[in-house]
Amino acid sequence: MTARIGFIGLGIMGRPMALNLLAAGHELSVYARRTEALTPVTDAGARACDSPAGVAREADIVFTMLADTPDVAEVVLGTGGGTGGSTTGVSASDGGGDDRRARAVIAGIRPGSVVVDMSTISPAVTRQIAAELAPAGATMLDAPVSGGDIGARDGTLSIMVGGPAEAFAQLAPLFEILGRHVVHVGEHGAGQICKACNQIVVGQTIAGVGEALLLAEAAGVDGARVREALLGGFAGSRILEVHGQRMLDDNYTPGFKAALHQKDMRIVQETAHELGLGLPGAALVAQLLNTLVGRGDGGLDSAALHLAQRRLNAQGESS
Amino acid sequence: MTARIGFIGLGIMGRPMALNLLAAGHELSVYARRTEALTPVTDAGARACDSPAGVAREADIVFTMLADTPDVAEVVLGTGGGTGGSTTGVSASDGGGDDRRARAVIAGIRPGSVVVDMSTISPAVTRQIAAELAPAGATMLDAPVSGGDIGARDGTLSIMVGGPAEAFAQLAPLFEILGRHVVHVGEHGAGQICKACNQIVVGQTIAGVGEALLLAEAAGVDGARVREALLGGFAGSRILEVHGQRMLDDNYTPGFKAALHQKDMRIVQETAHELGLGLPGAALVAQLLNTLVGRGDGGLDSAALHLAQRRLNAQGESS
Repeated sequence: MTARIGFIGLGIMGRPMALNLLAAGHELSVYARRTEALTPVTDAGARACDSPAGVAREADIVFTMLADTPDVAEVVLGTGGGTGGSTTGVSASDGGGDDRRARAVIAGIRPGSVVVDMSTISPAVTRQIAAELAPAGATMLDAPVSGGDIGARDGTLSIMVGGPAEAFAQLAPLFEILGRHVVHVGEHGAGQICKACNQIVVGQTIAGVGEALLLAEAAGVDGARVREALLGGFAGSRILEVHGQRMLDDNYTPGFKAALHQKDMRIVQETAHELGLGLPGAALVAQLLNTLVGRGDGGLDSAALHLAQRRLNAQGESS
Repeated sequence: MTARIGFIGLGIMGRPMALNLLAAGHELSVYARRTEALTPVTDAGARACDSPAGVAREADIVFTMLADTPDVAEVVLGTGGGTGGSTTGVSASDGGGDDRRARAVIAGIRPGSVVVDMSTISPAVTRQIAAELAPAGATMLDAPVSGGDIGARDGTLSIMVGGPAEAFAQLAPLFEILGRHVVHVGEHGAGQICKACNQIVVGQTIAGVGEALLLAEAAGVDGARVREALLGGFAGSRILEVHGQRMLDDNYTPGFKAALHQKDMRIVQETAHELGLGLPGAALVAQLLNTLVGRGDGGLDSAALHLAQRRLNAQGESS
């Protein structure tokens, strides 16, 4: 594969992914807002561009790995309304100044290019971005991942892909570098829907394991024995194995941060709202993550949802 | 091991367990209310007794495998207040007539005997029963199981044991016949607490998988692809694998019946109430199981909790 590759977003996830592409022998054009994020990647041979548009001009395939919906809308279309805060992402009326659009991927993209967004963002906004790129002759894939920074570093991510089958087939060799469990889920947005499903399952399984360990403790029963007993049966899961142990150890070093899980559950709630769908279990998980982040614990691993369950049952706490 | 064994309760779980003990070469004295439940076991060489007391007189180790808390209280102490309905199980004031006590295990039990209750019942009542047996010189173990009728037949149950370590050690060879993952969790009632924990985790994991598949369907995404993608990552679990497939196939042939899961979640709720413990996720699962059983679907597999989630989101249903 001789395609020239662009990579935008070189944070805790994007940097090791970009380095894996470089290590596999690909030429990379990169962009990041922060210079210090660029250095490790340019040191490894990547060429820095001064804007997302610049990356798009040089690359046939443009990866984005950013924090949230508005970041992707800003980088790709120049319509993100800045970073953070807004949850609506992109809209026609938002527009974006000419300056912002001139710096965005869409200003530099060439016919036949593919934009691969590996961030976890709104499925609806994903479909909007794909629709905006189409007139420029560019294809979009949404390809959010599961597996955290360790999976990014080791190239063992799970990758859930939405978009046209031909583009998926074209990108498959690159996905194989980045992950080891790659599934083409469906059309535009299907990857993001799949990631939302993933976070629903992970969140409720954490909640179940957390409540179980809370019950054991309140009843004077050794939680470690309970975990051991449950692992052998139908309650067994990777969450019980890994996060159950974190809860027993009271060790919430991330891992996958609670603030990001909160953001993902916000996307779940927004999507459920758009679809008119009642997901009470997911709503409960979102509320617990809200209280966790609200207490300043968003930087802990998302297994710390158990702390929110403990606080609900804490004695004598007034704040 | 030459101990003489008693077995009371020869239903869908108890019968194959009793047959496994017989097949391993043990002599069995058995009791069941229904003659037709006795026949397959007496045909295999067990001796029928005319009461639980009769079983206790003949046996050093008395297994019980019954439906609910009042059943165990009635069989062991004669204080169950009949079967079904009551959720309080045993109490000193209930008393039980002299007749009922005379027919119960406690009337025939000998010093040094062990009563092993493998039913899933109230942890609090379990501790009461253990306390009532102690003056007769008998020990109790609570040893509820996970794995369903298939696990009972194949001898592959998970067994969660509460009670004295010496009695656990004495029974270990028999547990090895009945199951393959046997854990001594703690003192009296700890096995039942562990089973409650198991049902909390199983219930919430089913709920999470069900909501994820509901979101996928509402968004027009193939649930089978979502299940496949999630199985490879952190959302992976036996519930996603087995029950996720049941949901996709709309096949709720039990398996473990929803009515029994409802009963187990009632025990969870009662225990949380006794402990003053808030378990909102478990409460939500209990509510969904209530609506499922209330619609006459208690005989379906407990994965049919997904049907309750679907009904919550059904269009145009009026009843």
